[in-house]
Amino acid sequence: MIYLDNSATTKPFPEVIDSFVTVATKYFGNPSSLHELGMKSERLLTQAREQIAAALKVKPSEIVFTSGGTEANNFAIKGVAFQYRHRGKHIITTAIEHPSVSEPCQQLEQLGFEVTYLPVNEHGMVTAEQVKKALREDTILVSVMHVNNEVGAIQPVEEIGALLAHYPKTIFHVDRVQGISKVPLDMKKARIDLCTMSAHKFHGLRGAGILYVRQGIRLSPLLAGGGQEMQLRSGTENVPAIVAMAKALRIALEKYDKQIDYLHEVKQAWLNELKAIPEIQINTPVEHSAPHIINFSLKHGMKPEVFVHELAKSDIFVSTTSACSSKKKAPSKTLLAMGVGEERAESGIRISLSFENTLEEIPIAVAAMKKAIEKLSEVTR
Amino acid sequence: MIYLDNSATTKPFPEVIDSFVTVATKYFGNPSSLHELGMKSERLLTQAREQIAAALKVKPSEIVFTSGGTEANNFAIKGVAFQYRHRGKHIITTAIEHPSVSEPCQQLEQLGFEVTYLPVNEHGMVTAEQVKKALREDTILVSVMHVNNEVGAIQPVEEIGALLAHYPKTIFHVDRVQGISKVPLDMKKARIDLCTMSAHKFHGLRGAGILYVRQGIRLSPLLAGGGQEMQLRSGTENVPAIVAMAKALRIALEKYDKQIDYLHEVKQAWLNELKAIPEIQINTPVEHSAPHIINFSLKHGMKPEVFVHELAKSDIFVSTTSACSSKKKAPSKTLLAMGVGEERAESGIRISLSFENTLEEIPIAVAAMKKAIEKLSEVTR
Ligand SMILES: Cc1ncc(COP(=O)(O)O)c(C=O)c1O
Ligand SMILES: Cc1ncc(COP(=O)(O)O)c(C=O)c1O
Repeated sequence: MIYLDNSATTKPFPEVIDSFVTVATKYFGNPSSLHELGMKSERLLTQAREQIAAALKVKPSEIVFTSGGTEANNFAIKGVAFQYRHRGKHIITTAIEHPSVSEPCQQLEQLGFEVTYLPVNEHGMVTAEQVKKALREDTILVSVMHVNNEVGAIQPVEEIGALLAHYPKTIFHVDRVQGISKVPLDMKKARIDLCTMSAHKFHGLRGAGILYVRQGIRLSPLLAGGGQEMQLRSGTENVPAIVAMAKALRIALEKYDKQIDYLHEVKQAWLNELKAIPEIQINTPVEHSAPHIINFSLKHGMKPEVFVHELAKSDIFVSTTSACSSKKKAPSKTLLAMGVGEERAESGIRISLSFENTLEEIPIAVAAMKKAIEKLSEVTR
Repeated sequence: MIYLDNSATTKPFPEVIDSFVTVATKYFGNPSSLHELGMKSERLLTQAREQIAAALKVKPSEIVFTSGGTEANNFAIKGVAFQYRHRGKHIITTAIEHPSVSEPCQQLEQLGFEVTYLPVNEHGMVTAEQVKKALREDTILVSVMHVNNEVGAIQPVEEIGALLAHYPKTIFHVDRVQGISKVPLDMKKARIDLCTMSAHKFHGLRGAGILYVRQGIRLSPLLAGGGQEMQLRSGTENVPAIVAMAKALRIALEKYDKQIDYLHEVKQAWLNELKAIPEIQINTPVEHSAPHIINFSLKHGMKPEVFVHELAKSDIFVSTTSACSSKKKAPSKTLLAMGVGEERAESGIRISLSFENTLEEIPIAVAAMKKAIEKLSEVTR
């Protein structure tokens, strides 16, 4: 198997599954229970929070556990909107956010909020200058993703953070789901107020995510109830998945330290091979793009979903644009925003790597791709 | 270990953990991915949905997977409120709901909704008559729990459902988290529109829950995004936990069929022993209460948290009121609502059973309780 769909989800590290099983079996108590079994479970939760905070260079009290990236994004956006609605009703975001950012924004529009969707340039990027121009007296939130999930473009979050330092009434949210453990980001230095991460994108398990909530930022809870997670996110804590996430993050960051150069090499080797295929157009920008995402379009009206299925026959797994829009067969939102045109936006293929991918896979996968293109060309002709 | 805190959380069945590991290891694909690995994962998801729907005697399309009970309750309440806000702004619920129902209601009050909190009688019950009196032209939602998590009182949801059949514009939500697999409830017959369940309360794993959404009911998504779960609940699906939940539900319902009489016997034996202890007052109503929850208060100002810790020394685990309020040392909301008075409401202890508990445990646990009471009495004297 050559798995090239790591931006959709990653294979959990075996050690991560082991941790999960140990905690779910031996320390199954509810962390809110007063007895020893609850206390043990609470200690594991505290430890995981401390480990994750240390890895991210923030305070443990700034880490709020959620069920995943979608919850964290909804929580950040709606949480700010409902908490600060008396301060203002204007939100700034970009045209290329993940639906878990753009959809909540659209829901808020129906409730009387105003949202500015910043366009991107041909490299899939917004600029701090654009944000500055869009800022208003009543802007309560700016939400800009770190690494785009469709093409891998890296947004200038540090610059936007530096700009927003002059606007203390505007909260800065960053969706870091694709960037974490692949593209460095110092959340404190970038002056980020809220930051989203999701375990299953870095070889953790589904069911756990993180919203970093900078000290001093208040949020209206999305999941209100028993008051867990410092009153910010209620629900019996998923301690097994959270402990597993702490382990996944540690391993993923270690792999970053040891293997990031190799990952860049793998990406470059992929690009070189793909560029040589005449039926392919590369969409991923050369500069300011993440080391693990390559997006390209198929020419001559070849159907990307057929291409995906052809490759799957050889146990090679890639995707058409993002996982969540793949079934809608809609053109890629990010590619459209980059101005590549309808046809190219409808025939996008995404290769997304992890630290498990190798140079050795490339010739095998590329040969399969060429064969698939040949087959598709025959059909199209 | 004698674990008597099953209303806080249950020990996952070993088979359930096995299922989780198999799916997380072998079928880790994103169900939204078009390739074979995604499709396999999607098939498992569909299967789990069908199994759960069959077990609950509803349609697969009426099952929406969430991250747990708290999310399902927040989704039901806020989802109705935002979806039907132009129809009306009045909500009816009870004084004894779990915080994951009452807190969202309080959030909605701040957004201009009106909430009626029905009081309960000395048995911890509301009546359909009370609901009828509270109903208004603009009532969009009635939310009443099935089994109360603190004292085990069973609410007359069938009668309330029969009443609400005459009010087609009012949606009926039931929190069934404590009742499922312990107290039968035909959701169709009871004319329930929305119904909450949580895997970790029936020996499943944390990270998965269910909101039953009757066909025809529309909800504003709480987690908006990629459009998973029939556009109702976005986020990469936690397929391993969902498959594990389907298995847990099957096993739990089988245990119900085989062991419900035994569970009643165990509860009765517990009650008989506890009644004979003069320092204890039973709070759980004799009639209309669930087979697995017994609530009692300690007399003479004995501190319930000290009692819990004393018992834990003998590896016997009980709780003070509900898990999520146990650390706040607040009086039990349900006991207060039942009118037992402050002192008794502050000294509540909850024993909550599962089908794993036995008659043989009782003399051991009761002896430990008597010893603990003796010790506490000395301190108090
Ligand atoms: C950029 C981005 N944000 C958010 C998400 C949502 O994360 P999750 O699947 O954990 O809900 C994803 C992945 O689906 C993503 O790629
Ligand atoms: C009656 C009731 N409703 C809802 C919940 C919340 O469920 P979860 O812990 O899965 O969020 C609980 C348990 O905590 C409960 O007892």
